Amino acid sequence: MLVVMHSHATAEQVRAVCERIESLGLKSHPIPGAARTAIGITGNDGAVDLAILESLPGVAECIPVSKPYKLVSRDVKEEDSVIRIPTPLGDVLVGGKHLALVAGPCAVESEAQCMAVAEQLKPTGVRLFRGGAYKPRTSPYSFQGLGEAGLKILAKIRDEFGFGIITEAIDHESLDLVEKYGDVIQIGARNMQNFSLLKRAGRAKKPVLLKRGMSATLDEFLMAAEYILSEGNYNVMLCERGVRTFSDFSRNTLDLAVVPAVKKRSHLPIFVDPSHGTGKRHKVLPLSRAAVAVGADGLLVEVHHQPEKALSDGIQSILPEEFAALCIEIRQIAAVVHREVN
Amino acid sequence: MLVVMHSHATAEQVRAVCERIESLGLKSHPIPGAARTAIGITGNDGAVDLAILESLPGVAECIPVSKPYKLVSRDVKEEDSVIRIPTPLGDVLVGGKHLALVAGPCAVESEAQCMAVAEQLKPTGVRLFRGGAYKPRTSPYSFQGLGEAGLKILAKIRDEFGFGIITEAIDHESLDLVEKYGDVIQIGARNMQNFSLLKRAGRAKKPVLLKRGMSATLDEFLMAAEYILSEGNYNVMLCERGVRTFSDFSRNTLDLAVVPAVKKRSHLPIFVDPSHGTGKRHKVLPLSRAAVAVGADGLLVEVHHQPEKALSDGIQSILPEEFAALCIEIRQIAAVVHREVN
Amino acid sequence: MLVVMHSHATAEQVRAVCERIESLGLKSHPIPGAARTAIGITGNDGAVDLAILESLPGVAECIPVSKPYKLVSRDVKEEDSVIRIPTPLGDVLVGGKHLALVAGPCAVESEAQCMAVAEQLKPTGVRLFRGGAYKPRTSPYSFQGLGEAGLKILAKIRDEFGFGIITEAIDHESLDLVEKYGDVIQIGARNMQNFSLLKRAGRAKKPVLLKRGMSATLDEFLMAAEYILSEGNYNVMLCERGVRTFSDFSRNTLDLAVVPAVKKRSHLPIFVDPSHGTGKRHKVLPLSRAAVAVGADGLLVEVHHQPEKALSDGIQSILPEEFAALCIEIRQIAAVVHREVN
Amino acid sequence: MLVVMHSHATAEQVRAVCERIESLGLKSHPIPGAARTAIGITGNDGAVDLAILESLPGVAECIPVSKPYKLVSRDVKEEDSVIRIPTPLGDVLVGGKHLALVAGPCAVESEAQCMAVAEQLKPTGVRLFRGGAYKPRTSPYSFQGLGEAGLKILAKIRDEFGFGIITEAIDHESLDLVEKYGDVIQIGARNMQNFSLLKRAGRAKKPVLLKRGMSATLDEFLMAAEYILSEGNYNVMLCERGVRTFSDFSRNTLDLAVVPAVKKRSHLPIFVDPSHGTGKRHKVLPLSRAAVAVGADGLLVEVHHQPEKALSDGIQSILPEEFAALCIEIRQIAAVVHREVN
Repeated sequence: MLVVMHSHATAEQVRAVCERIESLGLKSHPIPGAARTAIGITGNDGAVDLAILESLPGVAECIPVSKPYKLVSRDVKEEDSVIRIPTPLGDVLVGGKHLALVAGPCAVESEAQCMAVAEQLKPTGVRLFRGGAYKPRTSPYSFQGLGEAGLKILAKIRDEFGFGIITEAIDHESLDLVEKYGDVIQIGARNMQNFSLLKRAGRAKKPVLLKRGMSATLDEFLMAAEYILSEGNYNVMLCERGVRTFSDFSRNTLDLAVVPAVKKRSHLPIFVDPSHGTGKRHKVLPLSRAAVAVGADGLLVEVHHQPEKALSDGIQSILPEEFAALCIEIRQIAAVVHREVN
Repeated sequence: MLVVMHSHATAEQVRAVCERIESLGLKSHPIPGAARTAIGITGNDGAVDLAILESLPGVAECIPVSKPYKLVSRDVKEEDSVIRIPTPLGDVLVGGKHLALVAGPCAVESEAQCMAVAEQLKPTGVRLFRGGAYKPRTSPYSFQGLGEAGLKILAKIRDEFGFGIITEAIDHESLDLVEKYGDVIQIGARNMQNFSLLKRAGRAKKPVLLKRGMSATLDEFLMAAEYILSEGNYNVMLCERGVRTFSDFSRNTLDLAVVPAVKKRSHLPIFVDPSHGTGKRHKVLPLSRAAVAVGADGLLVEVHHQPEKALSDGIQSILPEEFAALCIEIRQIAAVVHREVN
Repeated sequence: MLVVMHSHATAEQVRAVCERIESLGLKSHPIPGAARTAIGITGNDGAVDLAILESLPGVAECIPVSKPYKLVSRDVKEEDSVIRIPTPLGDVLVGGKHLALVAGPCAVESEAQCMAVAEQLKPTGVRLFRGGAYKPRTSPYSFQGLGEAGLKILAKIRDEFGFGIITEAIDHESLDLVEKYGDVIQIGARNMQNFSLLKRAGRAKKPVLLKRGMSATLDEFLMAAEYILSEGNYNVMLCERGVRTFSDFSRNTLDLAVVPAVKKRSHLPIFVDPSHGTGKRHKVLPLSRAAVAVGADGLLVEVHHQPEKALSDGIQSILPEEFAALCIEIRQIAAVVHREVN
Repeated sequence: MLVVMHSHATAEQVRAVCERIESLGLKSHPIPGAARTAIGITGNDGAVDLAILESLPGVAECIPVSKPYKLVSRDVKEEDSVIRIPTPLGDVLVGGKHLALVAGPCAVESEAQCMAVAEQLKPTGVRLFRGGAYKPRTSPYSFQGLGEAGLKILAKIRDEFGFGIITEAIDHESLDLVEKYGDVIQIGARNMQNFSLLKRAGRAKKPVLLKRGMSATLDEFLMAAEYILSEGNYNVMLCERGVRTFSDFSRNTLDLAVVPAVKKRSHLPIFVDPSHGTGKRHKVLPLSRAAVAVGADGLLVEVHHQPEKALSDGIQSILPEEFAALCIEIRQIAAVVHREVN
């Protein structure tokens, strides 16, 4: 259910409607739009008498939402959500006309490694740095990440270079720490339906980057985001990172058509990760260009100064100088599709 | 790496070898076999000098294990693992020649519902009861299970009927409770690569039923089990529940060939869940028969006394009387493939 | 559209209705059933005035068929179709309670090879022999089959041993020859949507075995069969041979749930080919057992007396003695599911 | 096997080497390159004595080719193949730096329809026109195309507007006619492994556009092309049109990563068909942009002046004015990736 307020409704009226909703045992989600505020209702709203809400001051109309996802839907918010990520170098905007770039190594391996990569990324103008301190690895015997020590290194990178930090959380404990040290909380593909973790992310105060699961349908992807929004965190960015198919020449099959598909259904921005999406260095550059051309709101690219020595995923990391060249091409393609890189 | 002991090696010698391994900063996993004990070594064993271990009393030989999974491998344990599940009605055995049946509703909805189902299952001879108290649901607005109250109902079912209880844990908190109230801890398909949860299950004192992820390869499936064994819990049972493919006439594509494939590589028993594997009642019976014929060590079947009123997955639940008839056919097919239903 | 005749309608009345249908520019397909005859109508029947047909003598009712497939549908024929394959050893029946076994090498390599295999198959009681004279191979440089010379060898096998012959046609030219030399015309998975070939098979006088394409949905599979029936050949048998998925431990993923799914929608019998379906010898036996348990109407098994020397697919061929042992188990499982091997 | 000639080798020397190869019972495929000519050898070359060929005048070296595909491989021809399609408006080039656009309706429905579409396409500068006279349809009861009458309409379009014509052949008979009336012979996805048809296309005198099968691996795709080249027709263009996966929001999953993957392995140009690849109008434009950005050598776009009245695939056809706007954007993106639209 969705309550649409009049364009001239006051903040007080919005608050009053929310209170009425909560008094019915439901949750209210006020979502300010360009023209007017909508209030999403979640909880078992089957029994709610519409008349109660429609008669409140400032209410324009009540609309039943039939889609399984509500808060992430364009029905609730027509215009694109623009997520603001504060960094020492200024806010980075994601969504709408704003295209964001994120670069960095797959895993935080050492302070020296992160410093070296950050040093070489600095001149490209990128302002968001990625790197995993907690690595979900197929084998229990593979490098599992540096944990909190890794997060401290990332915090140092922010202090030193001004980059905002995007890093993955894999359970409640690590999410607490990522929320403390990082700027964006990443939920990885393997945890896309770890609903307990999604709910915790929904109570976090920082934006969340949610990666699509390896075999997630579009509805499942949007519903996973809905878990986060339904707990009150509306700063969610999606990320396509390739799905699993029979096709065996690349690590995953990058499903770029999901970008216009998401934009048709949801107001949330969507990134593309061409590094995991292809798993091979020589495909990262062309697929990065394609991702921008298809309308992605951001790119998440693995960059390593010594890919051949990387502790994980070196085979899909590009060099800082390749990333620098890519940035130039991306700005050109972004202009064609009326987007601005920031 | 694997240390194979002489058949006449003493328990003391085994212990001494384990202590030597631990003193090298590695983990030791003594695995008693029919003829002799093998000791799996995990941790970074690349640098270990074989000679140190080979010279210890009772050691027959040291074998490098090249597969990515070690403890779950047939290299480490040649004969089938037989898992023992204690129930008030006596131990249920899974693996080797023993075939186990598990039945019950998808979700614990109420005490009355569980009692009604259990009542009708009792005469079939089944001794393991399933039912979810924590339900991982695609939508945040769907019924999420009764939580601890549901576990208490299940415990009551055990007290009343003598059934062993298999129920799902979805995070650390629920795993603590499932370990307390249940007899087998189920890890669901969506959490197959929730490595933090797998490690916790590896420290549990009760057997674990690990379901295959929706798009998990065989190696990933075995490696997920390896996470549990590597933490010290060797009582792991696998479960095929269908994978996600283009094929759209059933909810999932039940990949029965995984049963002989697992048996070739691993000593662990494997269940089949034809209810989730097909998602349609009229396919559950034929696929149950097929699962036994293909060599599964157990069946996990959703049974509900009023499927049309079920809060989740009613469409794939069969009736108690259908299950009773199935039990008879299963015993006949089991005999053809030299298995005994218990 | 479907015209259902009264149970006491005469052959003359059926003929008169068919003529009326044809006079409207449509095709009529009289399909005799146990209780009464139905007449399928194909062609653009949108504009047909039902009243014209309903008023004809002997007509019980006219039913619009909304499914995309008509003649293969259970709506048109409620009871199972039983296909009769004449062989020198007597008719082999497929469908209903009759389960048929087919065995033989992947490819016809030489007369000596076929004779050796046939010799060893004889004592198992199998009466249908398979072997490809035209091999659709991924590479243009692989062995493409012996062509007509191969068909002549197969004809000799029939003369010598009394087996009925099932062999593949890959284009119009080879179909002419297979129709001449063989007893059942096989259309392979790669040609499941070679509609030109399907239409030709629909004009053939011999039964057709149609294999499911590697990524065919159930509707596409049934529609491919519909192409054959719509040309007048109602003796069609389907065959599941595995579909292509991400799952990499077997050559294909054998989708056994398609058997009950087909039976729900169609009256046509369905075989299972566990050899192509798994691609590995050690999986052929368990999956053969499972196929019978799930309700298949036939098995198509590759048997070679010297698999290690086979020119194609030796890795998935079983030995004649393994097939003999399998036959015994299959008869036992068939009895459980109320089927008779013939 | 591959014979590489000296850069200064004469045409006569090349001919002499070819004759020597043929005299050994093999096929020779001289492939002129920018710097020098290579001669591919196909047939059972296992037994060939290299010394025989290496000693011939003009031969630089003999190289065994281990890949399953030979003539399509970059090992045989290092530089990109540029295919020349003659049209009344001048040659259209495909490959290398040349990007080609093809537009037109899914099916030829009538002369009026084709004329209307062509009329509106003319101003966009596109020089290749597509339209199916033979339509492979899932249902035998769907519109199957106008056949030869449709080809005559297409020939008229060429006469009237100067467009080159690309149209599909579905069997030997239609291929004869397409070769007569059209400029490029299209082999559709469903026939990608109709090897009999591929061999026939290999003996045609016109270029071939080969679409990837719905579940074809990259190797299978290249091997299908190899079938055509091995018969002597080297003018082959590949086309990605989406593969079949679990992903259900689009008709197919457009696998754009196949473009850089093909370019790494083969010298053949590759088109992208975003219309079949997505199956939804609102995805065609963004995916067209992405296809050019990823490095495709051509686009095949369905354009219809009245999509809502189309006899097939109207839902994925864009309007002529949308195509015109797309052409402008494509030229801009092409410039970024150093390609020229022609």
